[in-house]
Amino acid sequence: MKPIKVGLLGIGTVGAGTFNVLQRNQEDIRRRAGRGIEITMVAARNIERAARVTNGACQIVDDPFLVVDSPDVDIVVELIGGYDLPRELVLRAIANGKHVVTANKALLALHGNEIFAAAQDKGVMVAFEAAVAGGVPIIKALREGLTANRIESVAGIINGTTNFILSEMRDKGLGFAEVLKKAQELGYAEADPTFDIEGVDAAHKLMIMSAIAFGIPVQFDKAYVEGISALQADDIRYAEELGYRIKLLGITRRSTVDGVEGIELRVHPTLIPTSRLIANVEGAMNAVLVEADAVGSTLYYGKGAGSEPTASAVIADLVDVTRLATVDPYCRVPHLAFQPNEMTDVSILPMADITTSYYLRVYVNDQLGVMADLTRILADAGISIDAVLQKGNRGDERTDIIMITHQTREKKVDAAIERIEALSSVVGKVIRIRLETLS
Amino acid sequence: MKPIKVGLLGIGTVGAGTFNVLQRNQEDIRRRAGRGIEITMVAARNIERAARVTNGACQIVDDPFLVVDSPDVDIVVELIGGYDLPRELVLRAIANGKHVVTANKALLALHGNEIFAAAQDKGVMVAFEAAVAGGVPIIKALREGLTANRIESVAGIINGTTNFILSEMRDKGLGFAEVLKKAQELGYAEADPTFDIEGVDAAHKLMIMSAIAFGIPVQFDKAYVEGISALQADDIRYAEELGYRIKLLGITRRSTVDGVEGIELRVHPTLIPTSRLIANVEGAMNAVLVEADAVGSTLYYGKGAGSEPTASAVIADLVDVTRLATVDPYCRVPHLAFQPNEMTDVSILPMADITTSYYLRVYVNDQLGVMADLTRILADAGISIDAVLQKGNRGDERTDIIMITHQTREKKVDAAIERIEALSSVVGKVIRIRLETLS
Repeated sequence: MKPIKVGLLGIGTVGAGTFNVLQRNQEDIRRRAGRGIEITMVAARNIERAARVTNGACQIVDDPFLVVDSPDVDIVVELIGGYDLPRELVLRAIANGKHVVTANKALLALHGNEIFAAAQDKGVMVAFEAAVAGGVPIIKALREGLTANRIESVAGIINGTTNFILSEMRDKGLGFAEVLKKAQELGYAEADPTFDIEGVDAAHKLMIMSAIAFGIPVQFDKAYVEGISALQADDIRYAEELGYRIKLLGITRRSTVDGVEGIELRVHPTLIPTSRLIANVEGAMNAVLVEADAVGSTLYYGKGAGSEPTASAVIADLVDVTRLATVDPYCRVPHLAFQPNEMTDVSILPMADITTSYYLRVYVNDQLGVMADLTRILADAGISIDAVLQKGNRGDERTDIIMITHQTREKKVDAAIERIEALSSVVGKVIRIRLETLS
Repeated sequence: MKPIKVGLLGIGTVGAGTFNVLQRNQEDIRRRAGRGIEITMVAARNIERAARVTNGACQIVDDPFLVVDSPDVDIVVELIGGYDLPRELVLRAIANGKHVVTANKALLALHGNEIFAAAQDKGVMVAFEAAVAGGVPIIKALREGLTANRIESVAGIINGTTNFILSEMRDKGLGFAEVLKKAQELGYAEADPTFDIEGVDAAHKLMIMSAIAFGIPVQFDKAYVEGISALQADDIRYAEELGYRIKLLGITRRSTVDGVEGIELRVHPTLIPTSRLIANVEGAMNAVLVEADAVGSTLYYGKGAGSEPTASAVIADLVDVTRLATVDPYCRVPHLAFQPNEMTDVSILPMADITTSYYLRVYVNDQLGVMADLTRILADAGISIDAVLQKGNRGDERTDIIMITHQTREKKVDAAIERIEALSSVVGKVIRIRLETLS
C-alpha cells in the first residue's frame, strides 16, 4: 500500500522534530500503522532553512495554502501557532476533505467548536494529542482510556516553563525575576514569556481537557487565569515549612453550587501537600492527575514540551488517523501494537546476559583482610564498586558488608559471588538484589 | 441505534464491578460510545448470587458456552481467570465472529499468539486493557500513544499485593511473613498468594507489555521470574540507608549482547534510587515507566487491581470496540470524547463560587491582639483554620502571620480579606494562594 501523504504547515522546533522522528523510526512506525507515513510537502517562511532540515526529501513552499489545497496531501499537520491564520488554514484543509493534526492549543481553546463541527460535517478527523502535555498521551487517556468513568476532576502541571521556574525558586531560594532570566538563558522560557508565566498557555490546555472530561464545548473566556509572576520567594518557603509545595496548577472539576451543577475551570499558583506524587514533579516536566469514579486516581507524567516529545504526540495522531482512515476495519489497532505480519523475532535474553547494578550483602567474620578479599574478587571480575556500607555486629563477632556495584553483566556477578562464598571468612550465602537507576 | 450486546463470562469481583459501573454511568458511556452498551447475558457458577448482583437485568446461565454461542451477544467479556477453559471459550467466541474483551493476563501471556491469530483471521477484535495495571490505560499508551517512538524499556510496579507488602515491611520494619499475614487479613493478598508474591502475575503482565513495546510474540517461558518471599527486612533497611527503595519491578528492555540485539524480560526485587518518582509509589498502587527515544520518560500511575478500577479498563475496551465496530467511520472517536450531539451545557463557575482551601499571609505590626482580630474575622466569615505559622520580624517590628484555612467558598475568603486589610495593624495587601489537597 502507498504511504499516506502528509503536509506540514511550519517546520520550526516541533516541525523539525516531527520530520526527524518520522525519518528515524519510519520502519517501526510503518510496522505499527500498517502503512508508511511520508511528509510530501512543507510550508515554511524560511525556505532555505526548511530545505536544510528536510534535505531535499519533500517539496517546500512558502505559501501554506498551497499545502492545504494540494491533491498530494492526505493529512495536514498545523504547527504554525497563533489563532487567525491557523484557523483559516485548518478550516480550508477540512473543507478540502483532508484530515488535520494540530499541536495548537490556543487555536482549539478558542476556535475548537467551529473546527470540530466543520470536521464532523465533512467526515474528516482532527487530532490534537500534541496540544496538551507534549508527548504524554493524556488526550487519549481522557478520551478513550477512561470512558467508563464519571470524571470528577483533572488537575495538571501543564506548563513546563513555570514549573521549571517554581522548582528553581524553591531549590535556590531565589526571586521570580532572577529565575525567569536564567530560564530564558537556558531556553526554558521564551523572550516574551507572558503566555507561559501568566498562565494563559496552561489555561488553553486546561480548557481542552475540561471539554473532553465533562463533555462541554470549549469556552475559553470563562477560564480563570492567574500566573506566577507575583509569587514571592517567602511564600514558597513558608509553604514548604507547612508541608506544601507551590505549583502552577490547572484545575477543572465538577462542583455543585447552591444545588446547581457547574464546572470549576481555573489556573493559579496552588499549594499541594508535599507527600503527593504530583507535588514532586520538578523542572520542566508535566503531570496530569485525573480523579474518576470507577478508576480512582490516575496520573500521567512526562515531558510537556520540546521538539521530539511534542513530535511524538503529533506522530501518534498521524498513526491513529492512518490506522482509522486506511487499514481494513478489524485490524486498525493491532493487538500487539505492530501489525501481525510485522512482528520481529529478536530473542529474549537469558539472565546471565543482562546488565544492571547489584546490591550485595555479605555476612562475614569480622577479621582482618575480609574487605580486601572481597574487593579483590570484584576487581578481578572487572566489577567496580559504587558504595560500601559496613554494619556493626548483631551481638556476635560478625558484620554485614553491603556493596553496591556499577553496571555489569550478571554472569560476572554470579561468578564473583561463587568465589566470595568460598572464602573462609564468609558466613552463608551472599544476598544479591538487582539495582536499576531508571535514569 | 440499538445497544451493543455484551455477554459476561464470570461475575466475581471484576464482573460485578463491570456490571455496576456500566449501570451507574450508562448515560455518560452511551454519550461517549455513540451507542448504548448493555449486558444481556451472564454465565456464572453461582446463579443465585449472579441474579442478586444483576437484579434481574439480564439472562443468567451456568454454562459459559451458552454465552459464546448466543446470537444475542456481540461482545464476550472473559473474566473467569485461569488458562484452559478461558482459552477454549475465547477461541470459540472468536470462531463465532464475536469480539472479545478479557482481563486475563495469564491467558494472554501463554496463549496470546494463538488467540490474536484467530481474531485476525476472523476479523474480530480482542481487547485487553484490564490485563495490565488495572484501570491505568497503559496498553493504550504503549499501543497507540507512543507509536512514534522506538521504545527502549518498560519498567513497572505491576503487582499491588507485593508493593503493599514491601511498603509495609519498610514502614514498619517488619518481616515478610508477618506482613503477608496482615495483607491477607486486609484482603490485599489472596489465601494462596503464590502467583503474586513469587512474581508470576507481574511476569504475565510484563510479557504482554514487552510484546507490545517491541513487536515480539508472547513467549512466557523465556521470562525470568523472582518474587519477594526471600526478601529480608535488613536489606530493605540497608537499601534505605544507601538511598534506595526496594520494589518488585518488571523490566523489559532492548539490550545488545556481543553485538546481537536481544530483549531483557525479568521480574525481581530491585533497588531504585529514592529520588525517582516510581520509587515513591506506595501501597497497592501500580506505576509503569516507559523510556522511548522521542518522548523520553513517561510514567503512568493508578490503581492496578480491584473491582471498579479493573472494570474501568474492561468498559474502556467495550467502548473502543463499540466505536470501532459500529459508529460511522469518521466519528469513531469523537474529538471531545463525547459524541458531538451529546455535549452538555453545564456552566463554568465564576471564581467566587469555587471551593478550596487557602494560604493567607498577613504582614502585621506585631502588636497585642492582632492574632485575635484575624481569627475573629475568619470565624465570623465561617472559615475555619487548619494551621498557623508566625514568622519573626525582618529587622523591624513587623511579623508575617500565615494561616491555612479549611475548605471554603472563595467569595467568603475575599470578603474576609477585605476586612483584614482594613485593620490598622495590617500592612499592605494580604497574600492569598489557593491550596488543593488532591486527596
